[in-house]
Amino acid sequence: MARSVGRICKGFQRLGLLSKQTQLIPFTRVPVETVRTIVTLPSFLFPQPRDFSLPNPSWGSEMTRMYEHYECQCEVETEGGQKQKGPWRKLPSYNRLLKYATGGVYLSKMIQSKARLFTRNIRNPGAAFEYVLFVNKEEQKCVCILQAGHLLEGPPGHVHGGAIATMIDTVTATHATLLSGPVMTANLNINYRRPIPLGSTVLLESSLEKKEGRKIFITCRVTSTDGSKLHTETSALFLSITASHLLGG
Amino acid sequence: MARSVGRICKGFQRLGLLSKQTQLIPFTRVPVETVRTIVTLPSFLFPQPRDFSLPNPSWGSEMTRMYEHYECQCEVETEGGQKQKGPWRKLPSYNRLLKYATGGVYLSKMIQSKARLFTRNIRNPGAAFEYVLFVNKEEQKCVCILQAGHLLEGPPGHVHGGAIATMIDTVTATHATLLSGPVMTANLNINYRRPIPLGSTVLLESSLEKKEGRKIFITCRVTSTDGSKLHTETSALFLSITASHLLGG
Repeated sequence: MARSVGRICKGFQRLGLLSKQTQLIPFTRVPVETVRTIVTLPSFLFPQPRDFSLPNPSWGSEMTRMYEHYECQCEVETEGGQKQKGPWRKLPSYNRLLKYATGGVYLSKMIQSKARLFTRNIRNPGAAFEYVLFVNKEEQKCVCILQAGHLLEGPPGHVHGGAIATMIDTVTATHATLLSGPVMTANLNINYRRPIPLGSTVLLESSLEKKEGRKIFITCRVTSTDGSKLHTETSALFLSITASHLLGG
Repeated sequence: MARSVGRICKGFQRLGLLSKQTQLIPFTRVPVETVRTIVTLPSFLFPQPRDFSLPNPSWGSEMTRMYEHYECQCEVETEGGQKQKGPWRKLPSYNRLLKYATGGVYLSKMIQSKARLFTRNIRNPGAAFEYVLFVNKEEQKCVCILQAGHLLEGPPGHVHGGAIATMIDTVTATHATLLSGPVMTANLNINYRRPIPLGSTVLLESSLEKKEGRKIFITCRVTSTDGSKLHTETSALFLSITASHLLGG
């Protein structure tokens, strides 16, 4: 257990390096040896990561409309005509967390170079998960706009319960990470209220319920984009992880 | 809601046709019009479905060993040397439920011909979910052997919590369907105890807890193949669905 979790934890520590670029995950404790290795690596080993959550031709009108709704609140204009940060911030989304950390291409080979993030493992735009996350720091909320492609089928013509769970885990874990640094999912309690037709666009709204020590309690609702239809309700529990916590320190 | 659920329900009704071939799902009420349409369709429209849960070169030694362990219990030899059904039965697994029902190729075009089952949407063997289900009718248990490929990544080097939830939903929903006919997932309550390294083979064991009217309560444990490591524990609730139940009849 300690070895396994320690391996994940090291991955997360390295992910701290990602925060220098994206400001997503607090940079905490990276071993000096790792930093030295990275410093000596040539820059061509660090390709520019592709953000998979930018608009593409597969996006339908509802996906695009909702994206623009939140995107235009990321930067607002003051009365004096100056631009300043708005209440929402768009989060980038890559097809592997570790790969795109500084030095991650090298580091990822130490784990599995072929590995891809489950939600971004299909190249064909629009075929599976098309999604984008926005965060509102002040309100401690995350919103995800999801367009569910034809490769996510469960019941005929509708989205698989596991695909819905996958997006819920993704959104709530991202939210918990933003609030507390690296976390692991401890519990997902999902109530499925109404099926989601394939091809439709839905909203996932994640809210912090409370924090108790290492525990972060988050709720998440999946609704139609106008909020009139409730598809699922979830309570999720995450545990903050650090090397000292997990390795008995 | 009625329209949406009705659409799923019709899909399931058509899935009843699948049971004639596989004996998986009780054939209940198929509209006479549908039967007439199917009867008049030429046979070349019904290709032989591919069973994705048969051994392939991507299977590692542990996956193969576990498969053989259960497969050899599907047919046993009596003292007199005769072969007879054993306690376990292997379930076939297709990449779309509806498509491979009798007449399903035609019927699936009425919903979405491109749609694929979420767990079987990647062609490359071994890259994502490699799994096979066995059922023990007498013990009211299902077992799934899962080899988790490199496209299922969540935490660096480990399986995404959503991918684990996907397999839990798949196994428990299949089990509930075998027990009660067509069902919908109502609740999944998943406790994540220990991460699963990418590439490893694990067992999902599903057991009937109780049935109360339309409700089917099922538990599911994900463990290492020798049972020594517990990865997740789940309680799941399913609701039986029929046209009369769901459309207010």
